[in-house]
Amino acid sequence: MLSIAFAISLFGGAPSLTDTVNTLKAKGLGELGAYRLLEELSGGIGPRIAGSENAARAVDWGEATMKKLGFQNVRRIPCMVPHWVRGKVEKLEVGGIPLSCCALGNSLGTPAGGIAAPVIEVHSLKEAEALGARAKGKIIFFNRPFDSSLVSTFNAYGTVGDQRFQGPSVAAKLGAAAALVRSMTGDNDDVSHTGTTGFGSGAKVPCVALGLQSADRLSHILKGAPETEVRLTLDCETLPDVQSADVVGEIVGTERPNEVIVMGGHLDSWDKGRGAHDDGAGVVQALDALRVIHDLGWKPKRTIRVVLWMNEEISGTGSAAYLAYAKKAPERQLAAMESDSGGFAPRAFGTSLTGRRAARLNRWLPAFQTLEVDHFTPGGESGADVEGLAELKTALFGLEVESQRYFDYHHSDKDTIDKVNPRELQLGSLNMALLAWLISENGI
Amino acid sequence: MLSIAFAISLFGGAPSLTDTVNTLKAKGLGELGAYRLLEELSGGIGPRIAGSENAARAVDWGEATMKKLGFQNVRRIPCMVPHWVRGKVEKLEVGGIPLSCCALGNSLGTPAGGIAAPVIEVHSLKEAEALGARAKGKIIFFNRPFDSSLVSTFNAYGTVGDQRFQGPSVAAKLGAAAALVRSMTGDNDDVSHTGTTGFGSGAKVPCVALGLQSADRLSHILKGAPETEVRLTLDCETLPDVQSADVVGEIVGTERPNEVIVMGGHLDSWDKGRGAHDDGAGVVQALDALRVIHDLGWKPKRTIRVVLWMNEEISGTGSAAYLAYAKKAPERQLAAMESDSGGFAPRAFGTSLTGRRAARLNRWLPAFQTLEVDHFTPGGESGADVEGLAELKTALFGLEVESQRYFDYHHSDKDTIDKVNPRELQLGSLNMALLAWLISENGI
Repeated sequence: MLSIAFAISLFGGAPSLTDTVNTLKAKGLGELGAYRLLEELSGGIGPRIAGSENAARAVDWGEATMKKLGFQNVRRIPCMVPHWVRGKVEKLEVGGIPLSCCALGNSLGTPAGGIAAPVIEVHSLKEAEALGARAKGKIIFFNRPFDSSLVSTFNAYGTVGDQRFQGPSVAAKLGAAAALVRSMTGDNDDVSHTGTTGFGSGAKVPCVALGLQSADRLSHILKGAPETEVRLTLDCETLPDVQSADVVGEIVGTERPNEVIVMGGHLDSWDKGRGAHDDGAGVVQALDALRVIHDLGWKPKRTIRVVLWMNEEISGTGSAAYLAYAKKAPERQLAAMESDSGGFAPRAFGTSLTGRRAARLNRWLPAFQTLEVDHFTPGGESGADVEGLAELKTALFGLEVESQRYFDYHHSDKDTIDKVNPRELQLGSLNMALLAWLISENGI
Repeated sequence: MLSIAFAISLFGGAPSLTDTVNTLKAKGLGELGAYRLLEELSGGIGPRIAGSENAARAVDWGEATMKKLGFQNVRRIPCMVPHWVRGKVEKLEVGGIPLSCCALGNSLGTPAGGIAAPVIEVHSLKEAEALGARAKGKIIFFNRPFDSSLVSTFNAYGTVGDQRFQGPSVAAKLGAAAALVRSMTGDNDDVSHTGTTGFGSGAKVPCVALGLQSADRLSHILKGAPETEVRLTLDCETLPDVQSADVVGEIVGTERPNEVIVMGGHLDSWDKGRGAHDDGAGVVQALDALRVIHDLGWKPKRTIRVVLWMNEEISGTGSAAYLAYAKKAPERQLAAMESDSGGFAPRAFGTSLTGRRAARLNRWLPAFQTLEVDHFTPGGESGADVEGLAELKTALFGLEVESQRYFDYHHSDKDTIDKVNPRELQLGSLNMALLAWLISENGI
């Protein structure tokens, strides 16, 4: 069946699908261009939290890189971003013994001498809320673990997300002094994993993520001695918002230039580690996907555009800026795909398409299967930066990758380029190139 | 469609397939037992080339472990194994500068002062054979690289395999003094990757694998100065054969005890690294698959057996011994599966079944898909230790895993437990447990 599907040329007189894929493979896997770019972005620039000098450098780099690669209409789409700064002091001590922790994004700092207060451990927002007046002045410790029985680590992440996103806000509303959150990882070391927490316009508290071993140790102590006191010292702070930008570049379509296929990742990262998997990978995969198409001299019928979004991690102002642009532009955003699940071996494409439109994608599946994408997931996830485009009826896609290792590194000091395999990264990029190319030639 | 398939109980009054899978997942991923066993085998015992003291320790460990885990009929199936010893000196120098190398299994040693001879680089056996008399007294350097455009690294490995398996023998027949072989890896460092080479009863030569950077350096030198002389010094040697054994244990079937489902990996490894992925992974995956079934109190209708084969790497006498046993035993070897592609995330099962029998497996596919096995590959690979059972009409299976990283580590100092992710390893084991269980309950 594979060979029959392959024998069919999908482009009239153009190269067969087999030839297209083989050409992409030979060039992409021969050059491993995505990894070279990742060496510049993650290795060279490093961590680039929104609002930081490094984030500004990443914007400059994105623009310069697109120009160097020969993309057309290279430009910035401005957006404002928050400017939260971790500072230099992150200390959580129990009986004078340090626990491994790092501040969550948006956390308040503490007074210089820290905050000392008794800890109450809870396992859900509900349990925290039920503390009522008892929470006042205490430190609330959200310690529900990853559900290791879930095969998809993204699902496991989802089941504990409320603790980090909302836990500190719930604690603040109860008048708690601070919040501690078990790191959202299944890895059994003591590295802490940061991430954003949301306070909206409500009360704020200092809040940190704990490494898993530290979380377990603290929990053990609390079992023996409930409401043991800890001391938390943080000097993080929120500075005024900063001007930043998405970076955009494209190859203009030869026949339908106003029908646009977007692919990208987010340019910002956390300030821990060096944003290699999250989301340096997505950025360089998209860049190299368009580079390969460009360097092969292929002329897409529709416009293929790379968008590098700013500030995905903290408040999504970059994707909002692109959406605002897209609403006004005399274009149709035909399709948009994001890679923001790490640069691991590809396994599938999630797609917002369902029913017959999703089923029609399967005519291309034999080609994707030679690049390790086994299936399309109808009604599946796309990515935080593209999902807003649903409003414009854009067909959305998200590269799904092998997920077992992602949350070992995610938002932590471990998210560095040595965790990325150049071929796994490139295979993701090639699938993006292939999907963008097929949509540009055939519509969707 | 998934939910419909799941709703169907496949075992009359027995638990539904969904319940079966969920029970396996919760226990397996909760305990990560395969990794604990790998810590003992790869971490504790370490490298265990056939014939070595460590290989004997691994046999003892396998037997003791099976007994400890509560398996029945734990026993050894004796086999003779070769006893090749690397020795302490492995030196390849060009102009006094060392190149990274390691002896291939079965290599001759050199005289104590080494062999100095001019090098001729070739890229195929044919090119070597065409050298004719010119090869006499020279060192033949097989330097055809991995084909990086192949997505499956096993395919890339296959395309260069003849250089290592047969190259030294071809060189020996031509009267060459020695053979050098580019390591069979795509990783771009300078670590050398060993492996067996075959001389049969013919002439032998000293032979080594070169790290890729060393191979490239030597090739570069030869371009400028053809037939540059190198000096090779090895003190490896072949000692008399040694008695060893496969290790076997099982849970006897309650209804059809003489119908046997075999699963396993090979107990021996190379003497470089610590045999973590190759094939500590397969060994502990099979052991833990049966442990999980045992500990859950499940009573299989047919016998589920773990076989840990000895001497896969050098001459396959362990699998031959099991085959000889199987031919005589009053049993039917219904199915046999091996994991010998590394302990990475599972992707598929290769199966010797084709046509309708292969298609029938797809009724179980929705369950496997929740464990990351996306498909069965009809007529696909199984494993070197089980493929001989084809003679007995045994249905063969091989666990296919994400392959991009495997040959970065394979047969080298890098094959250590830190390269193994506990969850990826366990997912492979759970798929083996599920397949063994489904065959035991339903036949094949």
